[in-house]
This record gives sequence, C-alpha cells and structure tokens, in this order.
Amino acid sequence: MLDRVLQQIDDDLPASLDRLFTLLRIESISTDPAYRDKVAAAADWLAEELTGLGFDASVRPTTGHPMVVAHDATATAGPHLLFYGHYDVQPVDPLSEWATPPFDPRIETVDGAKRIVARGASDDKGQLMTFLEACRAWKAVTGKLPAKVSILFEGEEESGSPSLVPFLRANVDELRADVALVCDTGMWSRERGAITIMLRGLVGEEVTISAADRDLHSGMFGGAARNPLHVLSDILARLHDADGRVTVPNFYDGVAEVPDDVKAIWDTLGFDADAFLDTVGLTTPAGEAGRTVLEQIWSRPTCEVNGIIGGYTGEGFKTVIPAKASAKVSFRLVGDQDPEKVRENFRAFVTGLLPPDCRVSFASHGGSGATRLPFDGPFLAGARAALTDEWGIEPALVGGGGSIPVVGDFKRELGMDSLMVGFGLDDDRIHSPNEKYELSSFHGGIRSWARILGQLGG
Amino acid sequence: MLDRVLQQIDDDLPASLDRLFTLLRIESISTDPAYRDKVAAAADWLAEELTGLGFDASVRPTTGHPMVVAHDATATAGPHLLFYGHYDVQPVDPLSEWATPPFDPRIETVDGAKRIVARGASDDKGQLMTFLEACRAWKAVTGKLPAKVSILFEGEEESGSPSLVPFLRANVDELRADVALVCDTGMWSRERGAITIMLRGLVGEEVTISAADRDLHSGMFGGAARNPLHVLSDILARLHDADGRVTVPNFYDGVAEVPDDVKAIWDTLGFDADAFLDTVGLTTPAGEAGRTVLEQIWSRPTCEVNGIIGGYTGEGFKTVIPAKASAKVSFRLVGDQDPEKVRENFRAFVTGLLPPDCRVSFASHGGSGATRLPFDGPFLAGARAALTDEWGIEPALVGGGGSIPVVGDFKRELGMDSLMVGFGLDDDRIHSPNEKYELSSFHGGIRSWARILGQLGG
Repeated sequence: MLDRVLQQIDDDLPASLDRLFTLLRIESISTDPAYRDKVAAAADWLAEELTGLGFDASVRPTTGHPMVVAHDATATAGPHLLFYGHYDVQPVDPLSEWATPPFDPRIETVDGAKRIVARGASDDKGQLMTFLEACRAWKAVTGKLPAKVSILFEGEEESGSPSLVPFLRANVDELRADVALVCDTGMWSRERGAITIMLRGLVGEEVTISAADRDLHSGMFGGAARNPLHVLSDILARLHDADGRVTVPNFYDGVAEVPDDVKAIWDTLGFDADAFLDTVGLTTPAGEAGRTVLEQIWSRPTCEVNGIIGGYTGEGFKTVIPAKASAKVSFRLVGDQDPEKVRENFRAFVTGLLPPDCRVSFASHGGSGATRLPFDGPFLAGARAALTDEWGIEPALVGGGGSIPVVGDFKRELGMDSLMVGFGLDDDRIHSPNEKYELSSFHGGIRSWARILGQLGG
Repeated sequence: MLDRVLQQIDDDLPASLDRLFTLLRIESISTDPAYRDKVAAAADWLAEELTGLGFDASVRPTTGHPMVVAHDATATAGPHLLFYGHYDVQPVDPLSEWATPPFDPRIETVDGAKRIVARGASDDKGQLMTFLEACRAWKAVTGKLPAKVSILFEGEEESGSPSLVPFLRANVDELRADVALVCDTGMWSRERGAITIMLRGLVGEEVTISAADRDLHSGMFGGAARNPLHVLSDILARLHDADGRVTVPNFYDGVAEVPDDVKAIWDTLGFDADAFLDTVGLTTPAGEAGRTVLEQIWSRPTCEVNGIIGGYTGEGFKTVIPAKASAKVSFRLVGDQDPEKVRENFRAFVTGLLPPDCRVSFASHGGSGATRLPFDGPFLAGARAALTDEWGIEPALVGGGGSIPVVGDFKRELGMDSLMVGFGLDDDRIHSPNEKYELSSFHGGIRSWARILGQLGG
C-alpha cells in the first residue's frame, strides 16, 4: 500500500509543483498591512485545497491574520495528529538583490540539483505543502488517511504570532491531539533527514543597578563614590566559574544528561565544530569545559549577557560616574529547569552581591521551559523508522539551541508534544533574497510525510 | 603701607562694585556665535580698564575670541606673576528660572549677607575683578605694584579654550612668569580661604573587545561562542582588588604620600565625609580601603569605568551575542604618575587577559599628569600668610579631584606652576540660573590679593 502511495507521489510531482507555485505567487507578507488581502487570499486558497481533499476546512478570523483549520476523520484507527505550518512570508527587501521577482517562482538548476526559487519556498510554504501533498497521495490511493489528522496553518508566524496563543486557548478541545507535527525545521544535510527532539527554553532578565541619586563627575567624586558600572561588571563576571559553568545557585536543578543512544547518534553526525565556529570567525569553543560543541549548543543550559549599557557611550569622552547601569541577561534552559525558579535564583544571586549604597531592579522579559520529545515514545520511533526508510540512513536526532515558540505554546496550552520534522537546508536563504527550496527537499519531504503517516497510523 | 592699601580698598568698594556691574552687563557668552560682539566688547572694556591703571594692555585676536594681555613693570623688585582669569560666561538658559535678568546685576541680601546676582558674578568676572581692584588700590596708594605683574584674560574658557594652547605657544617669552595666579576656584567656607595645591591628572581610554565577525543568535551559538560582553565584564571586574586598589601593574609608580603638615591641615578642615556623600544619596565610601574620603578624592589615583555599551540595549529583548563590546575607562593621576606609562600598562593588562578568539582595540582620549604646587616654595608660603592675615584663620590647602585645564597648560607650555586662589562658594550656582557672588567674597577677595601681592613682592 505504501509503495503505491509513494509511486503516486512520484507520478504527481509536476502537479504538486504547480500547486506549490500557485501558493508561492500569493504575496502573503504578514508584517506589512498593505498585504493584508494577499495574506487572506493565501488562507482562502489553502482552505479550498483542503476542502478539495475531503477535509472539513475553514478560514478562522483572528484580530490579526486568519488561521486555517481543517480536520479529516476518515481514519479508522491510529492516533490524532495536529499538523502545523505557516503560510505567511517575510518581506522581500532588498528587492534589488533578487535575481528574479520573489513572487514569480521558478526552477533553477545548480550543480545538477533543481531548486525552487521564491519568497516562502522554504519558509514555510514549500514545507507545509509537503504534508498536504502526502495527504493527497494517501487519499488518492486509499481514499482515506492512516491516522486522524487536523491541520493548523498560521498567517502571523513572521510577525511574532500575536494571535496564536489566544486562538489555542479558545479552541483547546478542537486542536488538542496526541502529538503535533511541526514542519518548520531542517534536514541534517541534503542526504540525511533530521528530527529535532529538544529545544532549549529561555528566561530573559534585565537588571539595573543604581547607586548615587544622580550622575556624578569623576573628578569630584571619583575614588569615593560607588560606581554602578563597576558593580555591574563584578556581578556579571561572577555569573560563570573558571570552567564556564553558571554559578547561580541551584541553576542545574532539572538538567539531565542526554541518553546514550542519542549521544551515539550525535557521534555519527560528523558535526565539524571547527567549521561551525569558523563560519563566524571563531576557532575555540568558549563554553562549559568538558562538553562537546553540540552539547554546548543543544543540550546544556547557558547564561549569556546580551546587552550592557551605562554611563557615557557617545563620541569622545565624559568623566561621569553614572547613577545607574543595566544589563540584559538570558538563560537557555534544558530538561526540566523551571524558568521561574531560575529567574528567582538569579535575582537572589545578584541581590546578594550588592555592595552598600546599591539598589537593584529587575524586569522580566519572558520565560519558557525547554521542550523535549519523549525519547522512548511511539512518535519518535515511528518518525525515525520512516525517515530511515526514505533517506537510507538513520535521521539525525538533533537539539535546537533556540526556542520555536509554537512548540512551547502547544506544550503549555494544549499539553501536547511536538514532532519536529522539516526539510529545509542551511543554505536556503530564508528571510533573505533568492530564498530557495531544493526540489529534493520538496519531493523527499512529501515521501517522508507519507511514510510517517503510515508509521504513525500503524 | 599695606594698611593704607587695605583702607583704600574699603573706601573704594562702592566704585569697585560699579565697575564690576559694568562688566557684568556685557553679555559675553562665548559658546553662542550670536554674542561674538559682546565677547569682544568685554575684552575691549578690560583692556581699557587695564590701560587706565597703567598697564601696557592689548586685545589680541585669536581664531576664536580674543585674549587680553597686559603688563605692568612698575615694580622694582619681586618675582614676575602672571594672573589668569576668564571674562566669558556660560549661557543663561533656562531664562525663566532667573528671578531677575541675568545681565542686570543687583545686590540682594539673604540672612544679612549681601550678594551680587548676575551671570558671571562668580564665574569668573567677579573673581578676576578682585585682582584688578587689588592692583588699582596698590597703584592708588603707592603708584606702583609690589611685583612685576602680567595679566592674561581669556574669552573662551566656557567653550573649551580652543585657542589657549596655540596662544601660549606663540607667546611663550611674553607670558612665562615665575608663577601663575589662577583665580577660578573657591574658598573652603564663607569664613576660611583656600589654596588649591594639587589637581589630579587624567588619562582617558576606550577599549573595544571583539570576537566573532558578526552578531550571533544566542539560540544558535550560545554556550559555544565567545561573548565579548563576558570578556569585557571580566576584565573590568579585575581592574580593582578587594581593597579597591587598582590592579594595573606599576600603576602606583610615582604616587607619593601627602606631607604630614598638609595632612594636619586636612584634619582641621572639619570635612564631613558623611554629609559630602549624603548630598548625592550615598552613605559609604566606595574607594581605596584605609584612606579618608579627602584622600580618595584629592590625593589618591583612581580608575573609573565611565561608560559601557554592547549588544542589544533598546526596549524589550534580543538574544544576541554581539560581535563587540566597549568601555570608556579613565584614570585620575596624582604626584608623578606618567600618563603615557599608565596608558601603556593598562593596554598591556587588558591584552594579557584576552581569551582565545578575542581582539582588542584601544582609542586614546587624552592624558595629562597631575599638577602640584611645590609644598615648600615661596609662593605657597606667601599666599598662606596673606590669607591667614585676611581671614584670621589658616587657609585650607586643598586638593582638586578633577583637572583645571589652564593649570596643566601653563605647566606644560610655559613650565610654570600655578597658585590657585579663589573666593567662590559651593552654593554660588555657577553655570545655573541666579548665579551669585558673595559681597564678602568680592571685598575679601580684593583684600586677599592685595595682601598676596604684598607678600610675594617681599
């Protein structure tokens, strides 16, 4: 049965491409109000496509751009899956750097490989269409899907998803499924699939330290008056020990080691830490001692100072002792680290280091825990098998250094884990001129989803 | 003879005040080009006054506002003295906060004390006129001055003195004297004179630390990439040890202890360190352990961070690892500390602390050594005796935390020390609305200069 579905996909590829091109021609830039109607047109087109496939599809208004929600209940067994993608795209500036118009998709061939060039080809229209086309093939061959499938297409992902959480909260029962399938990540390489199994969480803090009730002249007060820039530097310098570990008390509570079988996969990835650092002009890992770079960026928590400002920072020089100085500090979280505990411990740590005459104030800039797909559950197992069959090699099970907000939102609002499978490549130039999506990503992506549906349907 | 001079000063006080008022009415704001003619008018008026006193006086053009230079060679003995003051004034904004027009001088009485209210009353027209009136009295009584006197009145002090050094360099032989008398400082209190015997020098440095060749996303690189904000904080935190001493190697070379007799005078000053700190909302001296606050601000060298900037510092949050971060750092110097050695040692210190992948660049923001009047010379001795006689109490011998540029310029360009005696008070509101000069400062200032001229003339 699966073989017939895959054959159908191969046979239908030209038509699949035509449909993708139709979607790519719709200028659905969500950040620019001038394109509001185009964004709506993309939603309408998707809802019509889904309706044509037998989904119960609707365009659902929000205070911003609409959601597209669709359900298919033709399956007689299997879990309930919620597929997520976004149909809005980034602006196209600078337009002059595009070799061809961004909304006039074309196929180009580079080194014998065909690629689809257009804004949104990779992020995320090409990706979401891989799933839609996989459903189409299953329906064409079997008349139904192997599992109960719901779909959520968002039109505001490139604008910070302001309507997403309210929409999830208002539609919990309709949208909650056994697992979410999120298609907005990449492959490990052109030839090897990837499943993102963990994303670090994030706590943002802004700390402001003040001393005197005004800026002071260092000629008059220098040597006697407390300088908040010194105090801030001292405190920031104490956030890490000599081994690069974070010194905030109890910071590592809830941090677990990655299972051995995952580490074993990481060892097979051929990840070149030197090359990774070299792309940005660095040579030497600067983080926690005794950890590989992959651990440092995927599975270990961090504390980074993201900004400092205080005193005179313009041209020339002023000999001021400022009244205050501030820093933005973020923590990347893993495992079960509790964002609010981390925040609380950080604030206590800073407060405990204050010398006389200093006051501190804190501002919170959000907090979310890490997300992690259960290592031993059926969804990861099914996707691993499917991607291994399709690409002929075990998929990379990777961590993500940063968060993907929708994944945290699904977990928090719907209590639902996410299986992150995508087919983008690092050189897809998403958000930049001449964005592209490999034809092998599109074609292999459709086939991969067809296999995953088969595996998860059992 | 001196008694007759002092009597002449007392008798002539109303006329002296009339002359000061005439000068105060001239709107000689040097920073505003619209007042260029007024500045010139003040110079002309001063040159005429000096000519009337028998000085060989001239208005000397510069590329900015003119200098007034005058010489009197009626003395038959004594040293050659160069008196310095400035006839330009600060702008008057905000005008609405002046109780009466800033260039319409008046006498007001507060708590029984008369004060002269006008822009420039204290800074520096009232001060420079104390010397001119002292010369007038000596001339009136004796027909000559007790010492050879030259005068330099500047019209750009409030604009950063751009023409001063070029003018000194072009007129070294004409202006070089045995000592400069600089009248731009204050009394210790209404009842006690002061001589500023030491001013700290200043070295300004800007240090920029860079690592990756671009700003990085902390989700992607955080934990592995070098963060210049961490490196900068670490280095700044190491500039002082736990006792508040500067850790830059050899920093204290050339730092001498203040002589015991000067320290003994400091002990008599009744300086209230708590009150000093309380004026700016502080309670606890933050500097070098084991030093009094007066030592900390007058006679000890310091290192202060005056500004830091790096990363994202706007509203909200960005999880960036910036490519670079920078700080402005200044050193206050005392004794014989060599500014260029301090700079060199600081740069070596920072460079030595750089971890892998970091580069540093430095920018120099000026450097000047400390200035100090020889503790055991005749000029300090004469001024001490004169001020003791006039005010009935030994003058405070004070340090200045910051530099007074002209004093450094005189030392550097003319090899000449400066005797800094002035009669301003801390509450004179210089640079602010309702600037005032106590009548007791003006009258006592004239009498003080008359006595100093007598003492130095021998």
